[in-house]
Amino acid sequence: MLNESAVIEKIWKVLPTRARRKGSDWLRLGVGDDAAVIRASSQRFGDGGDWVLSTDAFLEGVHFLPGVHSPVDIGYKALARATSDLVAMGATPRFFLLSLALPADRTGTWLDGFLKGMALAAREFGMAVVGGDTSRFCSVVINVTVGGRASRGNVMVGRSSPPQGRASHILTRSGSTPGDLIYASGTLGAAQLGLELILHGLDGKASTPRLPRGRQWRPILQPHLRPKIHIVLGRWLAGLNPSSRKVASAAIDTSDGLSKDLSHICEASGVGARLWAEKIPAVRIPQALQRGNAKLDPLDFALHGGEDYQLLFTVPPQAARRLPRRFHGIPLTQIGEILRLPARKSQRASRIELVTAGERVVPLKLKGWNSFAARSSK
Amino acid sequence: MLNESAVIEKIWKVLPTRARRKGSDWLRLGVGDDAAVIRASSQRFGDGGDWVLSTDAFLEGVHFLPGVHSPVDIGYKALARATSDLVAMGATPRFFLLSLALPADRTGTWLDGFLKGMALAAREFGMAVVGGDTSRFCSVVINVTVGGRASRGNVMVGRSSPPQGRASHILTRSGSTPGDLIYASGTLGAAQLGLELILHGLDGKASTPRLPRGRQWRPILQPHLRPKIHIVLGRWLAGLNPSSRKVASAAIDTSDGLSKDLSHICEASGVGARLWAEKIPAVRIPQALQRGNAKLDPLDFALHGGEDYQLLFTVPPQAARRLPRRFHGIPLTQIGEILRLPARKSQRASRIELVTAGERVVPLKLKGWNSFAARSSK
Repeated sequence: MLNESAVIEKIWKVLPTRARRKGSDWLRLGVGDDAAVIRASSQRFGDGGDWVLSTDAFLEGVHFLPGVHSPVDIGYKALARATSDLVAMGATPRFFLLSLALPADRTGTWLDGFLKGMALAAREFGMAVVGGDTSRFCSVVINVTVGGRASRGNVMVGRSSPPQGRASHILTRSGSTPGDLIYASGTLGAAQLGLELILHGLDGKASTPRLPRGRQWRPILQPHLRPKIHIVLGRWLAGLNPSSRKVASAAIDTSDGLSKDLSHICEASGVGARLWAEKIPAVRIPQALQRGNAKLDPLDFALHGGEDYQLLFTVPPQAARRLPRRFHGIPLTQIGEILRLPARKSQRASRIELVTAGERVVPLKLKGWNSFAARSSK
Repeated sequence: MLNESAVIEKIWKVLPTRARRKGSDWLRLGVGDDAAVIRASSQRFGDGGDWVLSTDAFLEGVHFLPGVHSPVDIGYKALARATSDLVAMGATPRFFLLSLALPADRTGTWLDGFLKGMALAAREFGMAVVGGDTSRFCSVVINVTVGGRASRGNVMVGRSSPPQGRASHILTRSGSTPGDLIYASGTLGAAQLGLELILHGLDGKASTPRLPRGRQWRPILQPHLRPKIHIVLGRWLAGLNPSSRKVASAAIDTSDGLSKDLSHICEASGVGARLWAEKIPAVRIPQALQRGNAKLDPLDFALHGGEDYQLLFTVPPQAARRLPRRFHGIPLTQIGEILRLPARKSQRASRIELVTAGERVVPLKLKGWNSFAARSSK
């Protein structure tokens, strides 16, 4: 059992506290004082590269389960899910502040594992910890605030043009216009399938959440335990590409699930949308799981499963030809199109329609995933 | 009981979400998207005004008690204590991100009170909320990340000079040199006296924490319930003054208590210190309390009581003549001086010596306050 200053010392020792040498002039003062000092404009980014900030809680019993999720996975995912919001804005992740509350008996091997996982993610994403806070508490409470630098470019698409003279590019939720094409990266529903395996077991009947034994399940669990985030893709869509032109008109990360996250874009942009069920890159459900779990529907997982942290983005038709089928190995799939909002208010209740495999058009229900707590309390 | 999106809507409705008109060009994108976008350099601040960031957890049962602390006070203090770290750097508070986890039964009047208190603080400090996160949880967990702009000036004192061409001023813990004079703002130990009254009652014997009835106790409770932070003083010390010159060589806010916070300055600056007991502006303990609590020692409260959020700072002798006795009504008191570290390592165990009322010189014990949890678990 460590005291507070020993915990802090351990944190600063394990997590990267310095900026990477390349473009590192943004960090003026890191951990160890009352606050961190971030340079407003750096030589590398110039005036245009604004700072992008987001904060994210990761709570024991809500977002992860004691005795099920390993501290290494928890540490990795805590940083990945917070950073995913920067990726969805097209920013380059740079730093984070870690607020960590722990029971005394988690300051030993548990904390070591947690920091190992978080350091792994920080190095992978190129981020340094610049500040934090520690408390003793009855359960593990993690809060991560992340900061990144907006990409720069020449030409804007969508509505989010900054005032003249500012060349910073960000991807918002509000830039979609009717006619834009809707894309998703990677596979959808994969994280939810991993969670399903933990919550209900191989036969769909287990009532105590636990990790299934056997290496063969790791690939299915991986998207839930250690989600991949697509930093380079986000930056490329925002304009960090050879043409320095923004490719996407709007973007969001699929943290709540495709149906709910697409509705966020539609609301912010004042538009409707159509999805084609057959085009959606849904997770493949292995036969071994289907035998026990008769009702596992890949489309349901893909539409409503949360925590995939894929990029959901819209692209104007003229920019769509610049999109490759795969970007650095990540499949990019066109799954629908942005529509005008129905003229009649009475028809606007569902902004999104789904074209089924049988070519029927049905309104899409929003069943987005929230958290274990929200799920069990509904 | 509200669902997540209703809670978020309420938060954005009650808390100020826009920057003040004066100097407001720093906020490019606030709440409602994946992340906030903060302009790197603004016309008002120019290149030199760097961003200063800090994060702070405020936990039920650790930092405040259910049934004792009102939601309005909790909301106010959550923002004040986080912002105090910016003040100690001499920054001008600008924005915050609120991460809030709540039980479902706190989403009604409790949340209303909390947001009212936080909005009060935000308006007083001139801050806008630019992002956040909400979760459902078994107890109230608050995390506040604050951002401010560093002051600008012409001449630096202390060691923290930035590279040439950067005119941003920040107050660090590491700028003290032997010969500097040590100052404290306001009264020390006042917040601890308020907490004492709540924890042990008027007679010092009560075992269940509660707020004492009667208006006469409010002035004693106030420093604990709604601490004042000294934004203008911090900026002035950092160089936002007519001469544009830094006044203080180092600064910290007294969140852990004078003894512990001064030791932070000494460690960061590689120096020792001497405090004069008789000069320390200790809280006055009313006779009514002394009758029951025979052992309440004002000096003990002043040296080791936490959460005053006063400014503890050091000033080179030549700059000391610029210090008024009161700054905008806040008393500034010289309480000691910075010394060289003893040459012998064996003598460095205590970096701080205390000159008692009887003119004895004794090593100062560090008994800094941490949190209810740390206190009860020690």
